[in-house]
Amino acid sequence: MARVSPEHLEARRRQILDGARRCFLRDGFHAASMQDVLRESGLSAGAVYRYFRGKDEIVVGVAQEALATIRASFERVAAAEVPPTPDELFREVFGRLEEDMGAGKDQRELPRLLVQVWGEGLRNPELADALNEAYARLSVQWARLVEEYQAWGWVDPQANTVHVARTLIGAVQGYFVQQALWGGIAPEEFARGLRALVSMSAPQHPGGAPAA
Amino acid sequence: MARVSPEHLEARRRQILDGARRCFLRDGFHAASMQDVLRESGLSAGAVYRYFRGKDEIVVGVAQEALATIRASFERVAAAEVPPTPDELFREVFGRLEEDMGAGKDQRELPRLLVQVWGEGLRNPELADALNEAYARLSVQWARLVEEYQAWGWVDPQANTVHVARTLIGAVQGYFVQQALWGGIAPEEFARGLRALVSMSAPQHPGGAPAA
Repeated sequence: MARVSPEHLEARRRQILDGARRCFLRDGFHAASMQDVLRESGLSAGAVYRYFRGKDEIVVGVAQEALATIRASFERVAAAEVPPTPDELFREVFGRLEEDMGAGKDQRELPRLLVQVWGEGLRNPELADALNEAYARLSVQWARLVEEYQAWGWVDPQANTVHVARTLIGAVQGYFVQQALWGGIAPEEFARGLRALVSMSAPQHPGGAPAA
Repeated sequence: MARVSPEHLEARRRQILDGARRCFLRDGFHAASMQDVLRESGLSAGAVYRYFRGKDEIVVGVAQEALATIRASFERVAAAEVPPTPDELFREVFGRLEEDMGAGKDQRELPRLLVQVWGEGLRNPELADALNEAYARLSVQWARLVEEYQAWGWVDPQANTVHVARTLIGAVQGYFVQQALWGGIAPEEFARGLRALVSMSAPQHPGGAPAA
């Protein structure tokens, strides 16, 4: 057997994942068959099974790529001198993610894929582990951002940075749920909602009269 | 055939839904069979099929009940003179929901059911419609609360109340995603994260030096 370069292996792997992602985005994870993935990636079964044991493993690969894209996008944004506010972060990460996933044509495709991936994570331990690891890394990254917010005096210095980070990540996950199920939610609307929330001045202890 | 009172019909319907919910919470929606639902509800197939055409219709019924519980809980809390802050609302609605669903033993059961319901909504149009209607009603309810926040001077009066409401609902949905997949997230941690976020004082236009 001829020697194969690491670059060649990586290019093949990419070709499979790109084809599979197009299938999953178009047909949904359950409806897409291995035959569809082979056709879309333009490779033979023999070639694909050299890289992945089956559809489950390909799903894990596609999900890990999406999560890596979120991480990379986050790192780029978070490196700015003045930390991005949560709504700026959402716009940036989301815009980059949509671009990378090639889901520009239909705003619901990527969210629908994610909701499917979560559902699969409930029954596929390998996928659950991949999601769990990615989430743990994301939580740490976002917690560092919240530390910066605290340094800038934007967030209560007593707040647990990981809890705040998880709630922020949760808001973005909620956006995906809503877009997947109902659609028609412009990312910009969600960003503005987030902006209004983080500029809210709710009292620490309720009380007092309405301002109006 | 003997005449049957509306109360009797309703009691039977409840018996089926309660049994089905216990099955779905314990085994997951896909793993739970109609046989399991029959055993758990203590009724014959003939009795159950008089009320529901199949498992899909029972899932819609269980989901609608959960959504009605959220609505009722929300209405009770939102009727308070001083509007509850988002974190207070989360504590109340979530606490009531867990109690009503009988999921106190395992905090992940209800979130796992919800993530499954969302996934099913992607392939079951009837369930998608039920979820969509419930979400539209929830959005309107939460938007009214945001109007109150504006009247109390807590939220930017220029903000679109529906967008803010959706972002709030999204944060709660994100909590369910995280709890379903990874568990170990105390609702109180999430509430505190939400509290820190809505007490944040991010600048309208970034700039200026760190406070520390």
